[in-house]
Formats: sequence, structure tokens, C-alpha cells
Amino acid sequence: MDIATLRARHPDHWMRAAAIRTLTLDAVAAANSGHSGMPMGMADVATVLFSKHLKFDPSAPRWPDRDRFILSAGHGSMLIYSLLYLTGYADVTLEQIKNFRQWGAITAGHPEYGHVSGVETTTGPLGQGIANSVGFAMAEENLRARYGAKIQDHYTYVIAGDGCLMEGVSQEAIGIAGRQKLSRLIVLWDNNDITIDGKVSLSDVTDQKARFAASGWDIFECDGHDPEDIDRAITAAKKSPRPALIDCKTHIALGHAAQDTSKGHGALTDKAQLEAAKEGYGWKHGPFEVPAEVKSWWESLGSRGAAARAEWETRLAALPQGKRAEFERTFALEVPGKLASAIRALKKQAAADQPKLATRSASEKVLNVINPILSETFGGSADLTGSNNTKTADLGVFDVESRKGRYMYWGIREHGMSSAMNGMALHGGIRPYSGTFMAFTDYARPAMRLSALMGLPVVYVMTHDSIGLGEDGPTHQPVEHLAISRATPNTLVFRPADLTEVAEAWEIAFSQKTTPSVMALSRQNLIAVRKTHTNQNLTAKGAYVLAEAEGSRQAILIATGSEVEIALKARDLLQAEGIGTRVVSMPSMELFAAQDEAWRKKVLPAGPVRVAIEAGVRQGWDRWLLGERGREAKAGFVGMSSFGASAPYDRLYKEFGITAEAAAEKVKALL
Amino acid sequence: MDIATLRARHPDHWMRAAAIRTLTLDAVAAANSGHSGMPMGMADVATVLFSKHLKFDPSAPRWPDRDRFILSAGHGSMLIYSLLYLTGYADVTLEQIKNFRQWGAITAGHPEYGHVSGVETTTGPLGQGIANSVGFAMAEENLRARYGAKIQDHYTYVIAGDGCLMEGVSQEAIGIAGRQKLSRLIVLWDNNDITIDGKVSLSDVTDQKARFAASGWDIFECDGHDPEDIDRAITAAKKSPRPALIDCKTHIALGHAAQDTSKGHGALTDKAQLEAAKEGYGWKHGPFEVPAEVKSWWESLGSRGAAARAEWETRLAALPQGKRAEFERTFALEVPGKLASAIRALKKQAAADQPKLATRSASEKVLNVINPILSETFGGSADLTGSNNTKTADLGVFDVESRKGRYMYWGIREHGMSSAMNGMALHGGIRPYSGTFMAFTDYARPAMRLSALMGLPVVYVMTHDSIGLGEDGPTHQPVEHLAISRATPNTLVFRPADLTEVAEAWEIAFSQKTTPSVMALSRQNLIAVRKTHTNQNLTAKGAYVLAEAEGSRQAILIATGSEVEIALKARDLLQAEGIGTRVVSMPSMELFAAQDEAWRKKVLPAGPVRVAIEAGVRQGWDRWLLGERGREAKAGFVGMSSFGASAPYDRLYKEFGITAEAAAEKVKALL
Repeated sequence: MDIATLRARHPDHWMRAAAIRTLTLDAVAAANSGHSGMPMGMADVATVLFSKHLKFDPSAPRWPDRDRFILSAGHGSMLIYSLLYLTGYADVTLEQIKNFRQWGAITAGHPEYGHVSGVETTTGPLGQGIANSVGFAMAEENLRARYGAKIQDHYTYVIAGDGCLMEGVSQEAIGIAGRQKLSRLIVLWDNNDITIDGKVSLSDVTDQKARFAASGWDIFECDGHDPEDIDRAITAAKKSPRPALIDCKTHIALGHAAQDTSKGHGALTDKAQLEAAKEGYGWKHGPFEVPAEVKSWWESLGSRGAAARAEWETRLAALPQGKRAEFERTFALEVPGKLASAIRALKKQAAADQPKLATRSASEKVLNVINPILSETFGGSADLTGSNNTKTADLGVFDVESRKGRYMYWGIREHGMSSAMNGMALHGGIRPYSGTFMAFTDYARPAMRLSALMGLPVVYVMTHDSIGLGEDGPTHQPVEHLAISRATPNTLVFRPADLTEVAEAWEIAFSQKTTPSVMALSRQNLIAVRKTHTNQNLTAKGAYVLAEAEGSRQAILIATGSEVEIALKARDLLQAEGIGTRVVSMPSMELFAAQDEAWRKKVLPAGPVRVAIEAGVRQGWDRWLLGERGREAKAGFVGMSSFGASAPYDRLYKEFGITAEAAAEKVKALL
Repeated sequence: MDIATLRARHPDHWMRAAAIRTLTLDAVAAANSGHSGMPMGMADVATVLFSKHLKFDPSAPRWPDRDRFILSAGHGSMLIYSLLYLTGYADVTLEQIKNFRQWGAITAGHPEYGHVSGVETTTGPLGQGIANSVGFAMAEENLRARYGAKIQDHYTYVIAGDGCLMEGVSQEAIGIAGRQKLSRLIVLWDNNDITIDGKVSLSDVTDQKARFAASGWDIFECDGHDPEDIDRAITAAKKSPRPALIDCKTHIALGHAAQDTSKGHGALTDKAQLEAAKEGYGWKHGPFEVPAEVKSWWESLGSRGAAARAEWETRLAALPQGKRAEFERTFALEVPGKLASAIRALKKQAAADQPKLATRSASEKVLNVINPILSETFGGSADLTGSNNTKTADLGVFDVESRKGRYMYWGIREHGMSSAMNGMALHGGIRPYSGTFMAFTDYARPAMRLSALMGLPVVYVMTHDSIGLGEDGPTHQPVEHLAISRATPNTLVFRPADLTEVAEAWEIAFSQKTTPSVMALSRQNLIAVRKTHTNQNLTAKGAYVLAEAEGSRQAILIATGSEVEIALKARDLLQAEGIGTRVVSMPSMELFAAQDEAWRKKVLPAGPVRVAIEAGVRQGWDRWLLGERGREAKAGFVGMSSFGASAPYDRLYKEFGITAEAAAEKVKALL
């Protein structure tokens, strides 16, 4: 269908959608970079969605019962910026649109969560938005079950492109959503047949509708440029008892010389072509100009949402006081005071019992205490429930018939799980944590990075955190993964040594508001290393003196997790030879780095030989060995410099030389 | 169907398959760990595959025209160890079976490439095997087109479980295989309805057959315990013009008390249950005992393969001398002498021209020289061909109708692409390289780790390697990814500064036999920093003095890639103030670390202030700043400590303080 016909059929709709298209063209031209084609192709779908279906209130962008709109195809960021500007979100001013992709503007190249009030999640890395959306929809189901439909009753809409659907993580997301019958999840597929390299058929022949249907989705179709057809499809999809895919047949860069080509995917900045496109649209306004009647129509949509929001406020106010407080507390990510006292009691007990157990088991003990106190926690595992020790008895299982359940069997989907956890955290009201083997950090990485970039307090429970995993061998033994997580900005990496440190680490992790945590936990049993109870959370200091040198302090052994026990044994060997040796436990490098110099100097004074013991690569350790008053000539490392091997774990520690004897020898060689 | 009936129907087959089951039970019991259920469930399928279809010769495990058998469900490693022992692979002795999962044994917990002659790829991280297999099948198609069906004419068989199919990477693999009509690829799905956490239905309801069909696969089914039905299905699948999925309905841990349960997935070590299972099988032999007639039947399969292999040797010998030499050279990963001279000529030209260009464009120039010389190279990109600059004119495009093509449009599938590259490298005869944006290292990580673990000389072309990417913003700007790749054992990370270093880096990368490489390349244009030609490959030294201090040497600036230019400018500023400053270019930390101390000391002598400049996180740099004769008080770093932002790249460099001025100031503050 040609542009003239489209215009003639729905003249009002046409101009409203044209506002998105022209703002996109102008902003990309001004930035001289960006992606024009997607917003131009999906403008009609977005216009219908926002005007006829989406529940939103620009004056209260964080309203907990709003519908969520997720632009999985994040490169089409001008679509969402246009929509937010047009509907009247205060932060998305025309100035911001004009400064698209410039330093200091909130209108980044890809939509960044936290920059723009109406952006629900950071997208750009393809497939993440659609996988996030599964978590959004799960959170809604869970909270609706727990707080009632008067408080939580909304949809999650996703715009996804061919790129999102080619990424493997989309399959994990589709599988989870289909299994869980997430009927409030609606994916609008921008089916434009184009990728950067050319036609989709260059690299894919997948029948996407059949693929989604195979995982239990309902399928709808529409002409993505016909507002009536789009409305019909969305209306039908909302009634579906299953997650819904709407195949929106669209033309990328509609009405531009680059329409239907891979060139249309990118920045369309040719001035003459731009003018010609506007001409074809019947758009007679200057750059960034939107006629008043179009703008006010868009703004009227927002006002409609304000009324719905006011009604919701009334319903929230009518909730029993305790329930309302709980709802507000969890959305504010506040932690109840009871948490600290419960952790203290647990630590006191641990000091008395001195249990020998794997830190993954210790973690289960701690979760047994925390989960009843924090109703917002939501656990899970990527098919390793019994190994990750993430399930506690009180949680219940989240399922189609048990939406109140707070434990999820994610299946063998580390990436989808992690990305869905991001979605749950973004939705609000929920603190997700889930587990896999630490070596499979690799599978979860794209989502872990986005937790950090977005500042989401998701907790990754990474058990079997070294060669201590034993017989499963090098594919399952993390070696570089502590370094990988530590290299990532805004990420807290914990490697606790015993039940006490595990309890402290969980307390910190669940108190975060803007930082994800990685819990590196052992498979193998470990002795209790903290012998005396302290009310203070020593893990919060990052590192501390666990055992002081007797006599003159000649050496400091620094260790984490399962190697703290080895450091203590090495200290015994050295002290027996009269070598005064301090042991420092360092459960979190990030937290230690954040302490003032006085504390750091107290823990790591100049002078003594320093040897670090950790069953991972050295990268990241030189800061504490050579830096912080250390010296190359007096520093050593006992750890891994290669991948692991398959054998019982005690044999592996011996063969790879991570032993008390080796650490003691290293110290003596450096003295 | 009960065991007795199965036994009665095919008594000979039954005992041959029972040998796999009992060896598995005995080995897992001896190791007291491992996975019994999968080999017990798939023993019948494997027996039929090996006896009626698989082309193999235990006396020549690396025979280039063998069929490839890939155990994607790697936890079932005793399946392949049993098969290799039974058919007579010399290295898989009974002793090795008895030492399953023990230190020093080649029979690791998961099958490790390079340990066992008949193991085609390392599996265990789920989904990798099936994604590798796409690369195996592509390699076969490509080499068959180039060398003829007399030389390359074989199938790739994969056993995959539900875990493999839930992992997202499987979707990427399925999509590639379907699009490319890889008709020699046959996936045998161990459809046993069980995962670790319970029934598959706990986490998935996907109709796998419909899902594969949606991507262009042909679907077959069989009763996975009926040898005739299995044979019929495999026979039909081999004739399919498309990749084939065979749904093998099986019972996990067949015949054991744990049959059809998630317990059956793991280690079945209960002695009484083990005996009862053997009793049910009609197996009256001691642990690890296989009756002579069964063993000799299995060995006879191997002899049959030896005849086929001898015929193949004759055909190979009949090839024209040049073609045969080329085939043998590429399978031996030998590099022709012409490479070095071509690189030298290119460097000479570069020294004369001093081109200002992005290192990704420099890379294309180098590939334009190399690809015509190295017929084994095979390039590609995950839908960023124009951005990664990986395509050269002579390659041709690999497609259904052009199998000789050496360039692949992988689609938006970084993970599947990387895993398939591993498969191509494992197949032999091909040196794969492919590109994406460096930030998407995250998506490719599981496969990149396996390149390193297996020792495959795959090259990852990672362009847009810093905030220099500019407007696309933090999701697309790598910050921690140099550290991530450097933390990984057996990985060469190159960050070349100009055309000369790019040429040197490619020469090194394509000369590797057992190490993958990461090429970190800039989006932005860079000046030529190597002004004079040297025959020597200086990048091979890891780091070298690019510009010597004039006057007394007070400072050393160390930089990589796009920041070398900044270091040179900082040197100008410092020299102008009379501060003698050396600039060290460090294109590869790994190669520098491998140099003898004399070289390292020459490049990084004790004394001067050291400041490193790299637009990434500091992790990994302390080794060169504080170590190697460095001192904390005289060391500084100019780089990133947070994620990036969206803006033109030159603005970002300024805002994040990665400038010549900042570096010069840092030096002066430390003097």
C-alpha cells in the first residue's frame, strides 16, 4: 500500500504517527547517527498501542500498576523518546530530543534505564528486552496473586525485532513464558524482513509464528500500518490465556527512499531524501516541529492515564495498613529492621556451633532465615536446585496454578533466567536471586552486565566456585570467573569462607538498592573460620584480620572463600617455625576498596611478605599484593594459571599446588 | 515395554548395548560420581548408530573423512568412553574406564577434546555440542565443494538432550543449520522427559519437533530402545535434503530402579540396585567385564571402518599433488611461507603510506592480503559485516548454492557463530574468524572459553573496542572485556595500534595451532604510530619501545590500540617540558609475559614513573605498573572505572579523562 492511500484512509492517525517518524528523522539527522528505520516502521503500531491500550500516566512514570512497555529492539530508541515527548513525560523535553545521542542528554543512543523516566529497561544488546519482559510478567502475576487484582493488574508489551528473535536468549524467554502461560505478556514483532547485513532470509528462514506456537504461545497477525487491524490484533491478544505474539508486518523506514532496505536500518541523514519523506507524509512543518493539535492529542492520552492512576491510589489506600506498608516497602527496596537482628542471631548461633559445611549449604541456612522475613525475595535455579541450595521450604513454587509461589524452576536457561531476574527487579516489588554453577557465569554474562549497568540489586548465586567442584572437570570449574565479575563495574562479588561470612554477605546483598551481587559459594565442605561472634558485619569491610600474627608479624596471608581454611593451616605451619603470620579474609574486594585508607592500612600494613591464596587466576590480585603498600619482591600468589582437571577435589588442590604447605613455602621463599 | 521383552526381541543387540550400560554403571560406581542415566538410556541408539551407520576407524581416529560423532549431552561421557573402549580405540583402555574421573586419566568427567582420540569436541556446558556440530557440517560442505566428494563425504551425528535444547544457543544453531540446509547433520534427541530438577514439564512444554521444523529441519521419530526402528529412522534421516532431528523416545537409566526419574540422571551407585539392574539385563559378568563375543563384535565394527579408510587413502593419493598438499597442509594447520613475506610487504607499504585509519579497516586491508594466500580461512560476522570489516572480495559467500564460499552471514547469533567456529576448527581444514562488537564478547563467552580450553586457533574479531564506539552508548561500549579475555587461560588478546600492528597480529593469530585470538579493533580512525619498517614482528614480543625518551628517562607511558596515539601526544607534552618520556606499545600482554626477563626489563626498566593508558578497566594492568620492577608510588593509570556513555567519541574521551593532557598530568604528579 502506498503512503498516499495510508494517509487517506486514516488521516488523523496518520499525522499522529507521522510525528514519531519526523521526530526520528530530525533527531537522527541532527545527531548524524542512530537508527531511523525501526521507529518509522513501527510508528503505527506504537500509536495504536499507546492510544488504545497502554495504561500509563506521564505524571507518575513509576506508578506500580502501569502497563510496562519494553522496546526490546533498543536501537529504535527514537521511537520511545518520541512517544515520551509527545505524551508529555516531563523529563523528555524537546531539547532532549534535539540533543539525541549527545553528552549529558538523557536521550542516549540506546534507551538507558534510570536516564529517562518512561524507559522500563536498558535495551540495545538484542534479545534482552524480550527476556526481561518474562520477568516483568512473572512479577505482575506473583504480585497480583499476593496483593490482589486491585493493586496489580497490568500488561507487559514488548516490541521485538528480527535481531531479538535470532538471539538464543529469546528462545529461553519464549520457553519460560509459554510454560508459565504468561497471558499478560504481548510481544509485537516488527516483522520487516531486514537486518543490517541484508534481508532476513540471508541468515534465517525460521517460521517465527510456528516457533512461538511450539512453545505454547498464541499467535496473532496484523498489517503493521493499518491502525484498525493493529487494534484488532492487540485486543484479541489481550484476551488470550497464553502469552501472545503479534506478527506486525511492517516496512522499515516507511516512506523513505531507503524503505525496505538494510540501509533503512541505520541513520538516514540525507537532507533531500529526508525532505522527500516528509513531503510524502504530508508533513509541512519544520525540523522538530509538531503541530499543536497533534501534540495535544498525544498529551490527552496521558491525562486519561492520570485518572486511572488516581483510582488506583484510592484502592491502594484502602488496603489494610500492614499490607500497604509491605507493598510500599518492597517497591522502595527498603529492608525491614528484622533482617539485621535475624542475621545477628544466626551469626551468634554459628559462632557457637562452628558447623563444617559447604558455603552453598550455609547459604541455604541463611536463606531459610531471610526468606520468611523478606516477602519480596524470589528464588530459583537453572535446573540445579539441589546443587545451588537456593530453595527454602516456605517459598512455594511459582507456577500456573500457584502464582504466589516464590521459587522458580527456570530450566536449563542461565541466560534467560538472569535476564528475567533483571525484569523482575525492574518491575519492582521483588528481589530476585537464582543459581547456577559459577563456570556458567559465561552463559549469564550479557544479563549480569546489564544488572550492573542498570543498577539492579539482583543476586547471582554461583555455586561450585572453583576446582573444588572436582570430578566434573574443567568445563565446570571456574578459573577466570571471579576476575570476570570483579572486572565489571558496579558489581559486588562475595566469596565468603563460612556460615558467618555467608550470612553477612547475604545481609549486604539484600540491602543493596542499585548494585547486583555475585555469591561465589563452594561445593565442598569447609571448616568454620570465624570463631567468635561480632555484632559488626565484618564482610561489609571487604577484608579484615581473621587471625593475628603471634610474635613479630613477618607475613600476611590473604585468602577468600574455601582458601581461607588453607591460609589458616599455612599460618599454623609458619607459626610453628616462629614466623609470625596474619591471616586476612577478603570476602569482597570491592567493599575493601571502598574503605578508607585507615582501615585498608590496618588490614594490609607495609612491611610483611604478602601471599594471596585463591583457587582462581591472579588477575585482580596484584592490586592487593603489589599495591596498597605492597612490594613485588615480597609478594606471592597461590592459585590457578590454567584450566582445571577432572578428579576428586582434594587431589586437584594438591596437584595444582593450592595447599597450606605450598603457601607456607611461598612465604618462606619471600622472607 | 519391559526389559525382558526387549531382551527377547533382539538378544544379540541387547547384550551389545548392555555392555555400554554395565560399563557405565561400573565406572560411575567406582568413581562414586558421574551420570549413569543418559548412557543407559541412549545405549541402543548408540549401538545402532555405530554398527550400522557411523564411518569410523579406531586405528585412525583423526582420519579426515570419518563421520563425526558429537555427544552434546556431555555429562553422559561414559557413553562415548564405553563406545571407544568397545570398538578398540587404543588410548581408551579398560584401565582408563576403571579410572573414570580420576587424576591423570583421560576419561574426564565430561569428554575433553585432546584427551581422548575419539572425542571430537569438549562438551558438558549444554548446547555447545549441537552448536559445534553446525560448524562441523558447514566445514564438510565447504571442503566437499572444494576437494570433491571423494575426499570429503561424511555425516555429523549429534546426541543432544533436553538440556541442550533448552539452552538458547541451540536455537541459534538450529536456525543456522536450517537456513543452510545442512543435510549431513543429524541430531539424535535423547527424549527422556527428565532434567535434574524433575520432569521436563516442570520447566518446558516446547514441542521440539515443531520448533525444529519451524527452522527448516526434517523430523523423524523412533522408539529409542528398538534397534530396527532406530535404524529405520537414521536411514531415513540420512536421505533428507535438510538437517534432520530424530526424536528418540528413551527411558533414562533404563532397567535401573531410578529409571524415568531425575535421580536416574546422576550417579547410580547403590550396590544392590546396580546388581539388580545387571540381573534384569541378563548380565552375568563381573564389574568391567565384557564377554569376548560381545567385545569382538564391537571391534569388528572398527575393522570395517579401516577398509573404508584405506580406500580413502588411495583416493587422496590420487589427487593432484598441489591439491593434496594443500589438503594436508590445512589439516596440519601449517601456514605457507608466503604469509610471512606478504605481511612484510604490507608492513613496508604501511611504513611508506602512514595511513590514518580505524584498526577495523586496517584489519580488512590485512585480510585482503591474507585470504588469497590462506585457502583455509573462513570469515563471517554476526550481522555486522560492514562494521566488523571481515569480508574480503575474494572469499565468496557460503550458501546452499555456493558451498565453496568462505564467508558466512551468521545472523544475529554471536554465541551460535562462535560455537560453530569451534566446530569448524575441530573438523579441520579450516581456520575460522568472525566478528561482532567487542561488548558482545558477553554473548560469545561460553564458546570463547571452550576455544581456549580445547586449544583451537579460532580468531574473534572484536571491533568497536572501547568508548571510541561513541553514540551507541554504554551497552555497546566494552569496558571490562579486555580484562575478561585476558583473564582467560590460553587466549591471545591483541589490541593493535595501527595497520602495522594489525598485520603483525593477524600473522601471529593465523600461525597459532592451539590458541585462540581476540582482535580488539577500533571503530575510530587512528594515526599510524609505527613510522619505520622492521622485518621483525614486534607485536610478537607483546610490548616494545615505540618512542624512546629524549634526555633522561623519567617516565614510561604504556598504551594499547587507540590509546597509543594518546600516549605519543602525552610524550610530546612531557618532552616539551623537558621530561624524558618513553612510549611502550603493548599490543599483547600475554606475549609480553611470555618473553624472557631480559626483554621485559629492557622494555620496562626499574626507575621511571609508569603510566598506562587504556580505555578499559585497570584490572590486569597492575602487573605491569606495580610489578615488573614497578612501584606503587610511581605508577598511574588513565582509563575507565565505570561504564561509558552515549556521545560522540571524542567528547567521551575528554569527559572520561582519557587524554594526552590527563596522562601528562598524571606523570607529573608522580614524578
